[in-house]
Amino acid sequence: MTVSPNLALNQLVDQRRANGESLVHLAFGEARLPVLPELARQLAEGARRTAYGPIAGGESARAAVAGYFSRRRLPTSADQVVLAPGSKALLMALQLAVPGDVVLPRPAWNSYAAQAGYAGKQVIGVPIPAACGGVPDPAALRRAVRAARARGRDPRLLVLTLPDNPTGTLAPPSLVREVCAVAAAEDLLIVSDEIYRDLVHDPVATPFLSPAEVAPERTVVTSGLSKSLGIGGWRVGVARFPVGERGQRLRDAVVSVASEVWSTLAGPMQHVAEYVYAEPPEIRDRLAAGVRLHGAVARAVHDVFTRSGATCRPPTGGFYVYPDFEPVRGRLADHGIAGSAELGRRLLDDSGVVVLPGHLLGDEPRGLRFKAATSLLYGDEDQQRQALAADDPVRLPHVSAVLARLEEAVTRLPPTRS
Amino acid sequence: MTVSPNLALNQLVDQRRANGESLVHLAFGEARLPVLPELARQLAEGARRTAYGPIAGGESARAAVAGYFSRRRLPTSADQVVLAPGSKALLMALQLAVPGDVVLPRPAWNSYAAQAGYAGKQVIGVPIPAACGGVPDPAALRRAVRAARARGRDPRLLVLTLPDNPTGTLAPPSLVREVCAVAAAEDLLIVSDEIYRDLVHDPVATPFLSPAEVAPERTVVTSGLSKSLGIGGWRVGVARFPVGERGQRLRDAVVSVASEVWSTLAGPMQHVAEYVYAEPPEIRDRLAAGVRLHGAVARAVHDVFTRSGATCRPPTGGFYVYPDFEPVRGRLADHGIAGSAELGRRLLDDSGVVVLPGHLLGDEPRGLRFKAATSLLYGDEDQQRQALAADDPVRLPHVSAVLARLEEAVTRLPPTRS
Repeated sequence: MTVSPNLALNQLVDQRRANGESLVHLAFGEARLPVLPELARQLAEGARRTAYGPIAGGESARAAVAGYFSRRRLPTSADQVVLAPGSKALLMALQLAVPGDVVLPRPAWNSYAAQAGYAGKQVIGVPIPAACGGVPDPAALRRAVRAARARGRDPRLLVLTLPDNPTGTLAPPSLVREVCAVAAAEDLLIVSDEIYRDLVHDPVATPFLSPAEVAPERTVVTSGLSKSLGIGGWRVGVARFPVGERGQRLRDAVVSVASEVWSTLAGPMQHVAEYVYAEPPEIRDRLAAGVRLHGAVARAVHDVFTRSGATCRPPTGGFYVYPDFEPVRGRLADHGIAGSAELGRRLLDDSGVVVLPGHLLGDEPRGLRFKAATSLLYGDEDQQRQALAADDPVRLPHVSAVLARLEEAVTRLPPTRS
Repeated sequence: MTVSPNLALNQLVDQRRANGESLVHLAFGEARLPVLPELARQLAEGARRTAYGPIAGGESARAAVAGYFSRRRLPTSADQVVLAPGSKALLMALQLAVPGDVVLPRPAWNSYAAQAGYAGKQVIGVPIPAACGGVPDPAALRRAVRAARARGRDPRLLVLTLPDNPTGTLAPPSLVREVCAVAAAEDLLIVSDEIYRDLVHDPVATPFLSPAEVAPERTVVTSGLSKSLGIGGWRVGVARFPVGERGQRLRDAVVSVASEVWSTLAGPMQHVAEYVYAEPPEIRDRLAAGVRLHGAVARAVHDVFTRSGATCRPPTGGFYVYPDFEPVRGRLADHGIAGSAELGRRLLDDSGVVVLPGHLLGDEPRGLRFKAATSLLYGDEDQQRQALAADDPVRLPHVSAVLARLEEAVTRLPPTRS
């Protein structure tokens, strides 16, 4: 039983920084942005909500969330919605509520597998396609499910991430349709983690299709405010359940877990959620500014890695990239780096760069891959404001300085262009 | 998989009231009191805490909680403290973190057993003594643990509730010592749920001894702000772990669960906790006023039940009573009431009185017992203010009216004094 590695690394960074060390922290998916003043006002106004209230969240907050989904081609009634202290809690409840084992893309966000362990489930990892992450390769998915059943396992749940953490990519509609078809053929329930949905960098170039549009009767969507508005510390998550009897049963089961684990989302946070999910103009403006910033810096970090010899899927959503140093394996091996653990350690020891090695995300330990979160590169609060407002945030001195340091770090790895 | 019955009944009451029905709601342990203005100010001030921060809670909040315990004869450092969205989440994490089965007093708060189910544990229920609840009878505890081991079970965890929910009584120090001795002899880890600790009605008449004072190396204490300050809807819980290697390991395991289930307590709520656990005068004053009110009304409800022929332990902490209509079983049976389910249903159907039948708390289904929470009898917000300020809240017209209605309801049960 170990602490979630991303949160653990985040604490390690805080400690080492407190000791005066200068680190480039790429190991934690926090959209660190100044809090929008209106959010603070809503929180204060929500103070009067001291009663427990309904487990799933109050009617008005659930109605606001239903409106949010309905405006995204997912017609939703308030009855289909459950709020919780973070979408993580909802993902855990889903794993407790649905029997059988769980299928995950490989790599995937580290908490899915850890939660499976607490829920007594086995994880069936399926490689992602070359083009994007967050979904398994459809043919490999079918094979893996059948192989698992043949050896007595009981895969029932498939978790997808759109856009993806850790690769920062969005699965295209055609691929979503293929994966949903396999899920339907194999009778898997889909959990579509869409917490980065509003952070697609260019929704025209990379259109978003939710599995809930393709397989509405078998898809639960989870989301929250941590990533889009940078209020991870406020812990606001939501889930949208399918209509129909199956959806109702599943929602009831999750509400039962909720009633025994967290009771309800804190009333003041429900008040905040009600405001945000109505999507007033100031929220839409902040989202747009955030997306611009996240996209620009993620692309710049992607370019740093590819210049250093790695391959890397171009990021299209969220604030992650997932470089692969396989092309320079020979040279890295000459210097004792044969897998993701060593790669991560070397970057930390030699250059003070903190990344999340791929093996912690279910990836092959001998892969030379890691996740880099690019959202902690925006500087202190004033610098974050500048970055949000800048036409080209990458050219801001404090951002370009950290990018230069990162480039030096990956270049200092056994030389790739000497 | 069913919704926690207390929360479910609470929702049912809300629905039936919305339909115009007049109910006396005794089935939900919510200390419904107006929010203290300073709490709202602290929440607003905490809005700037948008980052995830440490899983266990920030250093300053943990230090404040450590101070709270240290002032209660439990010397505590910040490292021993974990905050969470409610003590319920911490109790669940403890059940996930500790292997083996769980021993519960019978009756006990309904969520302990439900959580055990989610954690894959079996429940070993042990009857409470005649004098008080929240702890099992020590001799019965020893027998039950040994019998469970003899049939292949693995009891490892003992949950105690001081003061108790559902009986509203506080186990005396001598009994706590006896139970701790059995726990030590049988190597059980003790979880001492002390969420009602600051609601002991008369700490001189019924002194509080924590199992953590008696068996410090094997006792985890949980608590929170939901009951003492009536802010259940804000979801603030805390746990205090033992010092030493075993305590450290257990704390780490709970923090691991936390990292995968709820990440951290919301930052603004940590800010509130930091303020409250420092126990400034206005908090102490509110607590004192709350205790006076809870004690007076709980005793009045106790008297209503005993006048109607039930036996009932006199309440000494919190805001519950747990009457037993065994003395009038014959007369109840003549009218088709042979167990707690029928008793609860009859009270609801005949008189609109909502209680939590004992079988939902692990008690014998054929017992004629139920839990009555007395904290929802204080009226609307203005009436709650009057009740908090009153010398004798039971004589306030709105309180005495509901007590009279309750007395009529239990008298209308097959006549007990005809």
